[in-house]
Amino acid sequence: MEKIKTYIEKNRERFLDELFEMLKMPSVSADPAQKDNIRKTAEYVREKLEEAGADTAELCETEGYPVVYAEKIIDSKLPTVLVYGHYDVQPPDPLDLWETPPFEPVIKKTAEHPEGAIFARGSCDDKGQLYMHVKAFELMMNTGSLPCNIKFMIEGEEEVGSEHLESFVKANRERLSADVVLISDTAMISMEHPSIETGLRGMAYMEVEVRGPNRDLHSGVYGGAVANPVNILCRMIASLHDENNRIAIPGFYEDVAELSAAERQELNKAPFDEAAYRKDLDIKAVWGEKGYTSIERTGIRPTLDVNGIWGGYTGEGAKTVLPSRAHAKISMRLVPNQQSKKIEKLFQEHFEKIAPEGVRVTVKALHGGEAVVTPTDSLAYKAASKALEEAFGKQPIPTRGGGSIPIVALFEKELDVKTVLLGFGLDSDNLHSPNEKYGLFNFYKGIETIPLFYKHYAEMSKEA
Amino acid sequence: MEKIKTYIEKNRERFLDELFEMLKMPSVSADPAQKDNIRKTAEYVREKLEEAGADTAELCETEGYPVVYAEKIIDSKLPTVLVYGHYDVQPPDPLDLWETPPFEPVIKKTAEHPEGAIFARGSCDDKGQLYMHVKAFELMMNTGSLPCNIKFMIEGEEEVGSEHLESFVKANRERLSADVVLISDTAMISMEHPSIETGLRGMAYMEVEVRGPNRDLHSGVYGGAVANPVNILCRMIASLHDENNRIAIPGFYEDVAELSAAERQELNKAPFDEAAYRKDLDIKAVWGEKGYTSIERTGIRPTLDVNGIWGGYTGEGAKTVLPSRAHAKISMRLVPNQQSKKIEKLFQEHFEKIAPEGVRVTVKALHGGEAVVTPTDSLAYKAASKALEEAFGKQPIPTRGGGSIPIVALFEKELDVKTVLLGFGLDSDNLHSPNEKYGLFNFYKGIETIPLFYKHYAEMSKEA
Repeated sequence: MEKIKTYIEKNRERFLDELFEMLKMPSVSADPAQKDNIRKTAEYVREKLEEAGADTAELCETEGYPVVYAEKIIDSKLPTVLVYGHYDVQPPDPLDLWETPPFEPVIKKTAEHPEGAIFARGSCDDKGQLYMHVKAFELMMNTGSLPCNIKFMIEGEEEVGSEHLESFVKANRERLSADVVLISDTAMISMEHPSIETGLRGMAYMEVEVRGPNRDLHSGVYGGAVANPVNILCRMIASLHDENNRIAIPGFYEDVAELSAAERQELNKAPFDEAAYRKDLDIKAVWGEKGYTSIERTGIRPTLDVNGIWGGYTGEGAKTVLPSRAHAKISMRLVPNQQSKKIEKLFQEHFEKIAPEGVRVTVKALHGGEAVVTPTDSLAYKAASKALEEAFGKQPIPTRGGGSIPIVALFEKELDVKTVLLGFGLDSDNLHSPNEKYGLFNFYKGIETIPLFYKHYAEMSKEA
Repeated sequence: MEKIKTYIEKNRERFLDELFEMLKMPSVSADPAQKDNIRKTAEYVREKLEEAGADTAELCETEGYPVVYAEKIIDSKLPTVLVYGHYDVQPPDPLDLWETPPFEPVIKKTAEHPEGAIFARGSCDDKGQLYMHVKAFELMMNTGSLPCNIKFMIEGEEEVGSEHLESFVKANRERLSADVVLISDTAMISMEHPSIETGLRGMAYMEVEVRGPNRDLHSGVYGGAVANPVNILCRMIASLHDENNRIAIPGFYEDVAELSAAERQELNKAPFDEAAYRKDLDIKAVWGEKGYTSIERTGIRPTLDVNGIWGGYTGEGAKTVLPSRAHAKISMRLVPNQQSKKIEKLFQEHFEKIAPEGVRVTVKALHGGEAVVTPTDSLAYKAASKALEEAFGKQPIPTRGGGSIPIVALFEKELDVKTVLLGFGLDSDNLHSPNEKYGLFNFYKGIETIPLFYKHYAEMSKEA
């Protein structure tokens, strides 16, 4: 423990400078214009893993962006940890809401981050968190304390659905084989309440187009006699929820894994301050499916959210047009036992079915992934729990995360290996939003906790 | 009649060249960037009226864009015709749907326009139609056949609600006094069916904003527990129509002037080929308020159309964001006896009332105007009817137009003078749409018809 703290103290500044350098690279995987910057970022990660002491550190080409793979095998008889992370980031828009440019990292103090936080796109999701693993690896190498084998698989398409990862994993089963997958791409409740996410939601992301007349029309000449695609799209979207805010797509809940009363009670033990939650978001009331708490609504219940909508005239002033087309991006978060492919199909069939005769509808699935539940009785979970307890002086609480990391289900399916979600971010860190941030405390605490995980995991494996 | 045709033949090319020059000026009143081009267009119209033989032709400044005023008083004892038109045009977007650039006029032959049509923004609405009056005036001056006094009032803010026209009219009552207002800014049924619009719809144009959380959120972390402003906006917009496509705003129909069965029967005598209508728009079915025909839905019934909607991520690919805000532009076409100010108020109160607790709503009225009905028993109407019959060899049909020309109501209120809507466009001319066009036949036929109107109007006034 002392050895770890000393090493971090000695290299504090350098760790941060290296992370800043990576944060300056706009590796937005959704934006084709950033192609070169994304490769540059991959190469940077590769280089840092090599410097940290990996035997192998290379860029593995895929049909999309390359996967950075690195490994350090100290003894094939010892257990192996596979670290997953992603070097791509979400698009920064809306740019005008950023207080400082998204790719010019700066440190600012905030209420939740009195020691200061790094403001930049990707600071928390996931560059800042994956870099903790790179530096913890360096630390263990340079202090001769790496107790087991380690593999890194850092991808560049997580924010666009990891389209090419499945084929990569299938093609590299041997190479990626491990005893546990370790991922830091999630949040903990707060600095006072360390937690481990034991579940993630899946996702089905759709894009729809509603086409009316073959051209934009004068709303005076045609208005009232021709179906307006925007009005129709609004009507169709509105009909996707019922009066209890349940999703009204036939069969949508068919496979949902319902939790027992006991499990729900356990879940709701996690501290949740609704007043603070509302204040942080500046909303008068929370919202959601009738009969469930906010923790349950984001943790164990599926959702349907419009992520974007556009159609007609959106410029200055008034244009009296009856638009020809309307579009929306609609994503559904799924829970364990729902299958994204089936949900995509249900959505598409239903959406086409409810389209009135006056319009034509196109539905396209952009990407999907499955929900997962991670075990809380595994050695790896216990080791993570012990490591957090040692670092934070408090036993971590198991929680259900609302986000999606499709790769976790993929690892179970293809590599038959379970994952531990050792996240150090905060939900309030503006992931996917303007002014994304990551606490300095969280960053260094992560680098301190990770070697403890390896230590306990190796020891427990020996005893087992 | 011969004199008219000969003059038009002799000057055919020049008339067109002059119109093209005006069409090349992007006088988009909704776009502040076009400020200078709008003034240039006003000056061009002024100059042409002066050249045509006006005693006075000047730009009258307003708080917005100038009004072009011109007059030729031949005898104060003779009746006076006030010609109204507008030199501003609608925004051209979406630009990518134009086959040729909106401000580079070209002649192309089409099915409805075998002699060719002028493709350009404003070719029909309203530069092409107002220029017929400028050239008809020139014709009457150069052939010594102007039988009464004539005044021109050509504004530059019609497409953005004629905001400053009311104060201008009030300040110039004397100067604008006339016996009839003549406007060519509407359509006729077809070249085979000349018609005169005897009514116009009013308008209430609103912009709404729905605000949820104070920042864009991660749809996984918060989705399901926080009201999504886009979903909510869709729900609110959908609720504005009931299952019979009637507008569900309390009190909305209170003042609607209902037509008698006889009047409705008369109205539906106008030729309407639904199959051709659907084919032209490429729609499988028409749409609208239950219990009314397409002619009635656009002529005598009010509407509510979303003209534009936007919110969240609208770029390439998938961004899993729960947006902070959603916006829409919503306009209502009004019918005689409804008051735009009252409707704006009803809309605002209702929209604020139906907003759920999880969001905040802002409603803003962008502009409004009143519906009008023009008399069919006036000398001016009879003169227009006779002129069309002479020019087209067929008696014109009275119709109800779906568009709005707020100025007509203003003239009645402030100048106590009625209007004749002598329109030569076609509904299919893509007004307010990409590829707006105006038939060469229509353009020259208008120049031929207008002097006939003056002739008959002067004669009938003498007899009266």
